[in-house]
Amino acid sequence: MSALLSPTDFEAALRAIGAERYHDKHPFHRLLHGGKLNRGQVQAWALNRYVYQAHIPIKDAALIARCPDAALRKAWRSRLADHDGDETRPGGIARWLKLTAALGLNESDVTSMKLALPGTIFAVEAYVHFVAERSLLEAVASSLTELFAPTIIAQRVDGMLANYDFVDRDALAYFTPRLTEAPQDSAFALAYCVEHAKTPEQQTQVIDALKFKCGVLWSMLDALHVAYVEPSVIPPGAFVP
Amino acid sequence: MSALLSPTDFEAALRAIGAERYHDKHPFHRLLHGGKLNRGQVQAWALNRYVYQAHIPIKDAALIARCPDAALRKAWRSRLADHDGDETRPGGIARWLKLTAALGLNESDVTSMKLALPGTIFAVEAYVHFVAERSLLEAVASSLTELFAPTIIAQRVDGMLANYDFVDRDALAYFTPRLTEAPQDSAFALAYCVEHAKTPEQQTQVIDALKFKCGVLWSMLDALHVAYVEPSVIPPGAFVP
Repeated sequence: MSALLSPTDFEAALRAIGAERYHDKHPFHRLLHGGKLNRGQVQAWALNRYVYQAHIPIKDAALIARCPDAALRKAWRSRLADHDGDETRPGGIARWLKLTAALGLNESDVTSMKLALPGTIFAVEAYVHFVAERSLLEAVASSLTELFAPTIIAQRVDGMLANYDFVDRDALAYFTPRLTEAPQDSAFALAYCVEHAKTPEQQTQVIDALKFKCGVLWSMLDALHVAYVEPSVIPPGAFVP
Repeated sequence: MSALLSPTDFEAALRAIGAERYHDKHPFHRLLHGGKLNRGQVQAWALNRYVYQAHIPIKDAALIARCPDAALRKAWRSRLADHDGDETRPGGIARWLKLTAALGLNESDVTSMKLALPGTIFAVEAYVHFVAERSLLEAVASSLTELFAPTIIAQRVDGMLANYDFVDRDALAYFTPRLTEAPQDSAFALAYCVEHAKTPEQQTQVIDALKFKCGVLWSMLDALHVAYVEPSVIPPGAFVP
């Protein structure tokens, strides 16, 4: 068994996972941000990614539902509002539907999730099950991909605006609040994991939870790549651009 | 709502799903059977497919565990022996490990499942959860991909023997008993579904369960294709041939 890492080394180990495994390294992501996809391929990405967006508050509620610590429940609750909205602002799901509408997709085709790829569904379900079934520490740790989100969001917005004439800043409204929400959320989750991973075994659990979550995001892009880029074989029943 | 299909039409509808969605239509499968893969790619397939094989008796036990019908439990029990073995013969899992050994893989690399692709794990977990959580009728129906297995197995054995000098008939011992087990199992499951799907809604559930299962097998090949064929980007931590 490895020794207990210092807080600094533990955080460095977590950030190294992002540098190695976050989905900005996936070929599909590079095509998306590099302006190499056509409108139909961007539609397919947005339609499939909706499944993930729609399940974020479900996995967050699953975490709250199993949490005996009122302070953690209270802190985590802001994520529900971020994604489902409140009196003053639409949530992330509603903002994602602005993007899919701007791309010309029917809202019911998106929200029914019936046209999503099997690989998308399985990855998202794996995430929800993980948060509901693993330890609370691992459930919190699986959110840590947000440590790496601000960079990718900045790239995404700039790249998409520069390269796709079918996307404008209004269509990308989803991403702007995420630039402030994600750092707040990930700072909280990181501090929680650093404080509560008190043994080498628990530090390993946190590291493995973050690797797992990177795999969730990665495998969603695998399914998109095969169906819509190369060899471009769309499984029957899935979205056809 | 659609009308209740006759047993003949219902069976035809189920067989049509296989003709459209079974994983023999996937580009990776065609490469595998067509002799177009190298030894490392075949290793990656066998290592990942092991995860599926290893979970088959787990999902079958999950089905038995929730089944109030002793006759169904008894009939289903033969599947456990088929995969886990009995006094007279090795099971399917042990036979699969003969294949991975013949391909030059370390047994512990295979059985640990740590080198499998995220997409493989998520698809297999989705299958186990489906069988454990959906109705018993849907759980039985999700096994019906075995209706389509004998053809693919015959193709697989012939194609692999003809095209790969690193595979011999002994290494493919997994498949021979499946040529008799799969038709018996699928005939039983088909008869069960025809008898117990008494409403159009239940027939739709059976159809959707079979589509779901085709998606499980399909998405496993998606992950293999991206990692090991094109664009051939292996996610960090996964098997490197």
